[in-house]
Amino acid sequence: MEFTLDQVALLLSGKVEGDGSKVVNRLDKIQEGKPGGISFLSNEKYEHFIYETNASGVIVSEGFQAKKDIKTTLIRVKDAYAGFTQILEAYAQFTKNGKSGIEEPSYIDSSSTIGEDFYRGAFSYIGKNCKIGNHVKIYPNVTIGDNVTIGDNCILHSGVKICNDVVIGSFCEFHPGTIIGSDGFGFAPLEDGSYKAIPQIGNVIIEDHVSIGANSTVDRATMGSTIIQKGAKIDNQVQIAHNVVIGENTVIAAQAGVSGSTEIGKNCVIAGKAGIVGHLKIADRTTIGANTGITKSVTEPGQTLLGYMGFELKSFLKSYALFKNLPLLQDRLRELEKKQ
Amino acid sequence: MEFTLDQVALLLSGKVEGDGSKVVNRLDKIQEGKPGGISFLSNEKYEHFIYETNASGVIVSEGFQAKKDIKTTLIRVKDAYAGFTQILEAYAQFTKNGKSGIEEPSYIDSSSTIGEDFYRGAFSYIGKNCKIGNHVKIYPNVTIGDNVTIGDNCILHSGVKICNDVVIGSFCEFHPGTIIGSDGFGFAPLEDGSYKAIPQIGNVIIEDHVSIGANSTVDRATMGSTIIQKGAKIDNQVQIAHNVVIGENTVIAAQAGVSGSTEIGKNCVIAGKAGIVGHLKIADRTTIGANTGITKSVTEPGQTLLGYMGFELKSFLKSYALFKNLPLLQDRLRELEKKQ
Amino acid sequence: MEFTLDQVALLLSGKVEGDGSKVVNRLDKIQEGKPGGISFLSNEKYEHFIYETNASGVIVSEGFQAKKDIKTTLIRVKDAYAGFTQILEAYAQFTKNGKSGIEEPSYIDSSSTIGEDFYRGAFSYIGKNCKIGNHVKIYPNVTIGDNVTIGDNCILHSGVKICNDVVIGSFCEFHPGTIIGSDGFGFAPLEDGSYKAIPQIGNVIIEDHVSIGANSTVDRATMGSTIIQKGAKIDNQVQIAHNVVIGENTVIAAQAGVSGSTEIGKNCVIAGKAGIVGHLKIADRTTIGANTGITKSVTEPGQTLLGYMGFELKSFLKSYALFKNLPLLQDRLRELEKKQ
Repeated sequence: MEFTLDQVALLLSGKVEGDGSKVVNRLDKIQEGKPGGISFLSNEKYEHFIYETNASGVIVSEGFQAKKDIKTTLIRVKDAYAGFTQILEAYAQFTKNGKSGIEEPSYIDSSSTIGEDFYRGAFSYIGKNCKIGNHVKIYPNVTIGDNVTIGDNCILHSGVKICNDVVIGSFCEFHPGTIIGSDGFGFAPLEDGSYKAIPQIGNVIIEDHVSIGANSTVDRATMGSTIIQKGAKIDNQVQIAHNVVIGENTVIAAQAGVSGSTEIGKNCVIAGKAGIVGHLKIADRTTIGANTGITKSVTEPGQTLLGYMGFELKSFLKSYALFKNLPLLQDRLRELEKKQ
Repeated sequence: MEFTLDQVALLLSGKVEGDGSKVVNRLDKIQEGKPGGISFLSNEKYEHFIYETNASGVIVSEGFQAKKDIKTTLIRVKDAYAGFTQILEAYAQFTKNGKSGIEEPSYIDSSSTIGEDFYRGAFSYIGKNCKIGNHVKIYPNVTIGDNVTIGDNCILHSGVKICNDVVIGSFCEFHPGTIIGSDGFGFAPLEDGSYKAIPQIGNVIIEDHVSIGANSTVDRATMGSTIIQKGAKIDNQVQIAHNVVIGENTVIAAQAGVSGSTEIGKNCVIAGKAGIVGHLKIADRTTIGANTGITKSVTEPGQTLLGYMGFELKSFLKSYALFKNLPLLQDRLRELEKKQ
Repeated sequence: MEFTLDQVALLLSGKVEGDGSKVVNRLDKIQEGKPGGISFLSNEKYEHFIYETNASGVIVSEGFQAKKDIKTTLIRVKDAYAGFTQILEAYAQFTKNGKSGIEEPSYIDSSSTIGEDFYRGAFSYIGKNCKIGNHVKIYPNVTIGDNVTIGDNCILHSGVKICNDVVIGSFCEFHPGTIIGSDGFGFAPLEDGSYKAIPQIGNVIIEDHVSIGANSTVDRATMGSTIIQKGAKIDNQVQIAHNVVIGENTVIAAQAGVSGSTEIGKNCVIAGKAGIVGHLKIADRTTIGANTGITKSVTEPGQTLLGYMGFELKSFLKSYALFKNLPLLQDRLRELEKKQ
């Protein structure tokens, strides 16, 4: 679909400076702006692009003051980034195919129910005694086991597997290949050195507004529940072990892992590849840097940790700077020894 | 199903102290015990919960001596943990749906055979010339390639992919999304800087009683076989490269990786996120800590290694403690330098 | 199929020394050579095996001079390794089942097209408006979304998921469970501490001759494209975030990860478990060691980096050697302090 810049400004309650009759049908990054596209300028590091861009229009914030001539049309809004996100959403709404109905062959056990206005893709599978809400989209090759509950407005992308007894809230999104409710990794050592599987009879509870990335895995609890609380956002290839609790609005980036029975607080940020050992408690608003290993509970909220066995960010960076300079430190030590 | 505590005691050859007529239908952690549930006390760190728990019954070991009044019913057995595991297994046996038969549509090539008492879920695929044993469960959306052999009593959870020529023993379990027999990562550099794939004509051999976690990957050998020996237990998102050998009863935790042609001994324990470079030999009973990198062969059995380029545990911890204190060490050095 | 060693020599333009009438039907590693198999000797570390091997024949390079008696038949070629690879390819060609045609049930939307000489496995899914070239193999349980373009001679192994709008060149191979085009991980923080998903409206472009390993994930761009350039080879369980560019002929080993908007140059080698933070530029021909964290752009081409926050290889190894010896350094410092 196409819009004039005047129409875009109307949508955003913004003010046009320049030719508002130009037609746009695409969103571009400002450094890649081309005629027919609209961009935004939010980060001042990118300001120099606005003087050269070929974008038909650029959204800027109220306070923006041009330092050179500008040939593109400006749309001034309260907050350029928020404005652009608003268009992005409108655009996504238009372009996302509104899949609905049933593609055959697909499988649903007669004991299971699904609400109104759903999509069940070809080769999707729904086991016994499942209760699935309204407006749920189940893409091709999804497998849902037995006794699964799913709330309203959830999206299960292709190849997602939801195992038995999992309980999912509303407005959750599971990206392709994600697995929820696989068995926890629990084995009892026997006297002959071999191991015996401990039955994993718990489940997984996922609260509302949770998003889980592609090929991530969330294990069921040994007993009780592994819990992902409301609003948590989890990236690709993340591993959440049995009996873990992830707090509200906590964000976990790609390839991070949380070991069994650890409880992570609310509003934490865990960067990529971080690993947290089992049976810990991590306080609210903790930030854990990329590839950081956490080996002890974090009791004070709001800290930032970094390192192989992570500790406070600034201390770590000081130690690491000295680690890089260890050869120099050794030289200084030698110098002193010679003088003895 | 429901049982009285007297019935549970009978099953475990235990002795009831308190009201044995109470009915239970659930297993709970002791700290979450509620009426109608049965718990156990094994770790003395949790002892204080037994004086407050609302569980209908708690399994304790013969030697347990209460330090305060206890309101719940006790079942004394030889070993509380073993007793509880026994109930857990009985419970899992009851609640695990005994899936069997064929769900349609599913696919099996006419040249392949499958034994007695099987389950083939909808959208499961079995290629040519496969020989599959008795009591095998193949969940929905599983793909089995050509010339695959699978022993008795194996479970392939939803979305598992077994590639051509893989040989699997008996009593193996593959959790959702696991991939066995993908091509090894082998490319020959050409003069123009590009790469040419080296055909991977080997296979994967998985011996009896092996368990592999969700979304793990085991590559086929370039030539010969990648081998996972009897009783090995592998967690989620683990990567096993071409021509690797994993020894008997070795345990590998989530997100660990083993590079090509490395041979790992028996009864090793490899913690989460550990990485082992290629062409090494790791002695029996080696323990490798979380996120440890192993860059040299380990010849002496029974060692514990830790660190970015892992070395002996205690030495690593000493060095890491000094790493944290490097700013202090530098201060001391400065102090000495001033005095010169 | 079976060949005489004379026939093999003919194929390789090589010279037979010994009995050329022996029949072989298998390729073996030299240390595992058995009658009926053919091996090769390229690395002199393995030379001692040639005097003991039971292989029917061994391929050696022109210059090879035996130091002891040899009982096996030799085939002398210009380059033993290249010769062996040639046989390997011929062998793979023969043994790879030439899957073709359509297995039912499979799904293709009527608006999509696929070229000549294809394979569409059972339970494979092709959405709307897809254009798929000639000689493409789509294995069982593959899902292809809407508006996807795929060139000629591509192989999509079982369980691969290609999401909407992805553009793929020719001669690409996607190993089982790989996901291309999942949503980027982009969330805008709201005032109440919760997050709102930023629509991910870009796509993924994969150029010719790209190979991507099992269970890897490549996210779509927020806007624009995530790009994997010609000839890049990516191993298992690798994560490529939104808006990343991977340069021509760059190789990335298992479990590595590249964060959002980072651009990696040509002919780089990134070892297993390495992690690269977002918004960086990595120069051509950079080598990044196993488990290395890259936190700054690399501007000078051809460097090798290693370490938790990676720096130049030799410097890192020096610092790490001193890290291991920190207790000794501290002892020396104490000694000096005592003498004050």
